[in-house]
Amino acid sequence: MNQGLLYITRKEHFNAAHKLYNPSWTKEENDAVFGKCANEHWHGHNFDLYVTVKGHPNPDTGFVIDLKVLKKIIQEHVVDVLDHRNINLDVPFMHGKMASIENLAIGIWNQIEPHLKDCSLHCIKLWETRNNYVEYFGPQPT
Amino acid sequence: MNQGLLYITRKEHFNAAHKLYNPSWTKEENDAVFGKCANEHWHGHNFDLYVTVKGHPNPDTGFVIDLKVLKKIIQEHVVDVLDHRNINLDVPFMHGKMASIENLAIGIWNQIEPHLKDCSLHCIKLWETRNNYVEYFGPQPT
Amino acid sequence: MNQGLLYITRKEHFNAAHKLYNPSWTKEENDAVFGKCANEHWHGHNFDLYVTVKGHPNPDTGFVIDLKVLKKIIQEHVVDVLDHRNINLDVPFMHGKMASIENLAIGIWNQIEPHLKDCSLHCIKLWETRNNYVEYFGPQPT
Amino acid sequence: MNQGLLYITRKEHFNAAHKLYNPSWTKEENDAVFGKCANEHWHGHNFDLYVTVKGHPNPDTGFVIDLKVLKKIIQEHVVDVLDHRNINLDVPFMHGKMASIENLAIGIWNQIEPHLKDCSLHCIKLWETRNNYVEYFGPQPT
Amino acid sequence: MNQGLLYITRKEHFNAAHKLYNPSWTKEENDAVFGKCANEHWHGHNFDLYVTVKGHPNPDTGFVIDLKVLKKIIQEHVVDVLDHRNINLDVPFMHGKMASIENLAIGIWNQIEPHLKDCSLHCIKLWETRNNYVEYFGPQPT
Amino acid sequence: MNQGLLYITRKEHFNAAHKLYNPSWTKEENDAVFGKCANEHWHGHNFDLYVTVKGHPNPDTGFVIDLKVLKKIIQEHVVDVLDHRNINLDVPFMHGKMASIENLAIGIWNQIEPHLKDCSLHCIKLWETRNNYVEYFGPQPT
Repeated sequence: MNQGLLYITRKEHFNAAHKLYNPSWTKEENDAVFGKCANEHWHGHNFDLYVTVKGHPNPDTGFVIDLKVLKKIIQEHVVDVLDHRNINLDVPFMHGKMASIENLAIGIWNQIEPHLKDCSLHCIKLWETRNNYVEYFGPQPT
Repeated sequence: MNQGLLYITRKEHFNAAHKLYNPSWTKEENDAVFGKCANEHWHGHNFDLYVTVKGHPNPDTGFVIDLKVLKKIIQEHVVDVLDHRNINLDVPFMHGKMASIENLAIGIWNQIEPHLKDCSLHCIKLWETRNNYVEYFGPQPT
Repeated sequence: MNQGLLYITRKEHFNAAHKLYNPSWTKEENDAVFGKCANEHWHGHNFDLYVTVKGHPNPDTGFVIDLKVLKKIIQEHVVDVLDHRNINLDVPFMHGKMASIENLAIGIWNQIEPHLKDCSLHCIKLWETRNNYVEYFGPQPT
Repeated sequence: MNQGLLYITRKEHFNAAHKLYNPSWTKEENDAVFGKCANEHWHGHNFDLYVTVKGHPNPDTGFVIDLKVLKKIIQEHVVDVLDHRNINLDVPFMHGKMASIENLAIGIWNQIEPHLKDCSLHCIKLWETRNNYVEYFGPQPT
Repeated sequence: MNQGLLYITRKEHFNAAHKLYNPSWTKEENDAVFGKCANEHWHGHNFDLYVTVKGHPNPDTGFVIDLKVLKKIIQEHVVDVLDHRNINLDVPFMHGKMASIENLAIGIWNQIEPHLKDCSLHCIKLWETRNNYVEYFGPQPT
Repeated sequence: MNQGLLYITRKEHFNAAHKLYNPSWTKEENDAVFGKCANEHWHGHNFDLYVTVKGHPNPDTGFVIDLKVLKKIIQEHVVDVLDHRNINLDVPFMHGKMASIENLAIGIWNQIEPHLKDCSLHCIKLWETRNNYVEYFGPQPT
């Protein structure tokens, strides 16, 4: 048997404002579906982000990926874009999309995936409150 | 490639009493196998429950499932049945079964699964203490 | 010796948006002092609130305060006012004040204190992020 | 100025069952006051216990108290008495008292305090659920 | 359909010292790659270890594995070998390997796997700091 | 009545190695008192540090202290000195002292206190493992 893959995860966090509001609906429809999440003056969260990559440890370093490198990728392409921002207004990769954590996790995957070398992105896990999170494992082959 | 599935998790909790006791065994056999967990006067836990569902986000809402709906299903079919209860005595779906967290997780799966629409139940994760938890991913096709 | 006081704490949470911005300063002055916290499009947090009251246990109940009562006071006078709101725009007791957690903790004290009976408010502890919190123990006698 | 006191805290935990029930009241009165906490079949919790002692570090060891010693005192006089027990039925120091966490914290103080040497007990902090805890700082001089 | 597998996890922890240092490189090369992790005087961590096994619950006990048995295996073959040790110097199964958490997780898998009966090892999850962890799911069939 | 003091806390962390060893004792005496903490090859921890300052909020900012300033003081005078270091060998302010967390907390107080302006240091709280921490409130007037 061969050694299996190793999965390594780095946790980061950012604080942001958003609202859930579908502009093609009336205010009443938005209030009915999204409740207090549709508050026009926004609300916000401390988001916890877990980025998992997979691969085989490099024999010289013992690393699947140097966590300093992974941290830098997340900082530059995710945290700097989202931290202390308004997800609906300030974040280019969310323009035209509902600001749900589902869509946010997909957007974060697309921000990070192109920058990894010698290992692959496995999962984006995103906590919105202490009581809910989403996970996205990337696109599926057709 | 197509967009992959999104997994969304809601956390709830309940406090309950139980004991581990096999009525077809003697008291000595129960004490030997279950130790202090067999205390006839019961003991209890704060249980943390994570319910994960999977699906594709609805384009109008960005949601795999409205978490208010998922919370209501869990509240009605699990928390109201288990919270501040005795798992051995008060919980219909546990009658005749050992009150282990393994069996409790299977029972919770069966309580929730029939009520989900437009998405599927993926995992029941149940913490019993800060040091142990179980996960159940549902029945397997034969 | 007499039995000392008992201190009992209830934890609640709310999610809100805010910004740190002094309207009597220029935008440049605000950016220089508050940095990314001054983002005009807001940011937000999951706030964790710990409310501590003190007193002697009632001999009939063993309670300093019935936590169901304390929870209801916090819900009505704090969580309903702050959850999924904009602290600068939506919260009457913060009007005209800087939206810092220091001022928010003082405001929460003033919302809760008048509603307690047979025990006294001891401390408001408010976490803004996983890395910082404030505590306020109320006004001091002159 | 002299060096001030050092406060050192050890955390332990135990799981137990209890109910809130005043035997001098009717079942209806108990249900009205204690709600689901009065369930005759018990419920339970994972209790987290923080024991804080204060004193000056010993120059030879740097210790206020050897934590192995403090752990042993807590294990013997508190955890062995409470873990996997029924607080109302199995715990001698709670006989005749309401099984509230307020009374439990006072009882734990009395179990530990006589066994400390060269330092003093400062605080018993007891979490009952993730959302509430009590603190007791001992009897007050008259 | 048949009942699926149950996954049960036990959490343990240990504190250890290590450094990241490749002896076939110069000090300058080590400093360039490993930064402060290469400090010759060592640094250390509180490691959190989650061991997950999978199987079907025994009908008599409701258990996939008796957690007292799993705890004993982890204690004897992992915690006693690693706790309050130097991973580079004191741990036989790490000799000749880079002391990365990737390699440590593989070593822990190999320490535990031979001792399980009637269930299989599923995952070793190892937290090194609050911000990173690895997961290893064992060797892969060729 | 006047407004009381506000207490604001910033949390940081560092990872370090140490051992508990009194050089004026024999190895046997050290082993007897410190047990596995005396391992000559060191062990280590993830230390969590909470620094609490107190004061009155500045009317222009709402701040007792700008947390960016407090973070910088802690980084420069504590984290840069302790992170990924050996407390016994690498940390000037611990030379000649037992490397207990009691002494470490006193040392950290002395590193931070001289750098605060317009507010006072109230408490250094230092977690060594998930199960123990110390608190130091500074020197006492004679």
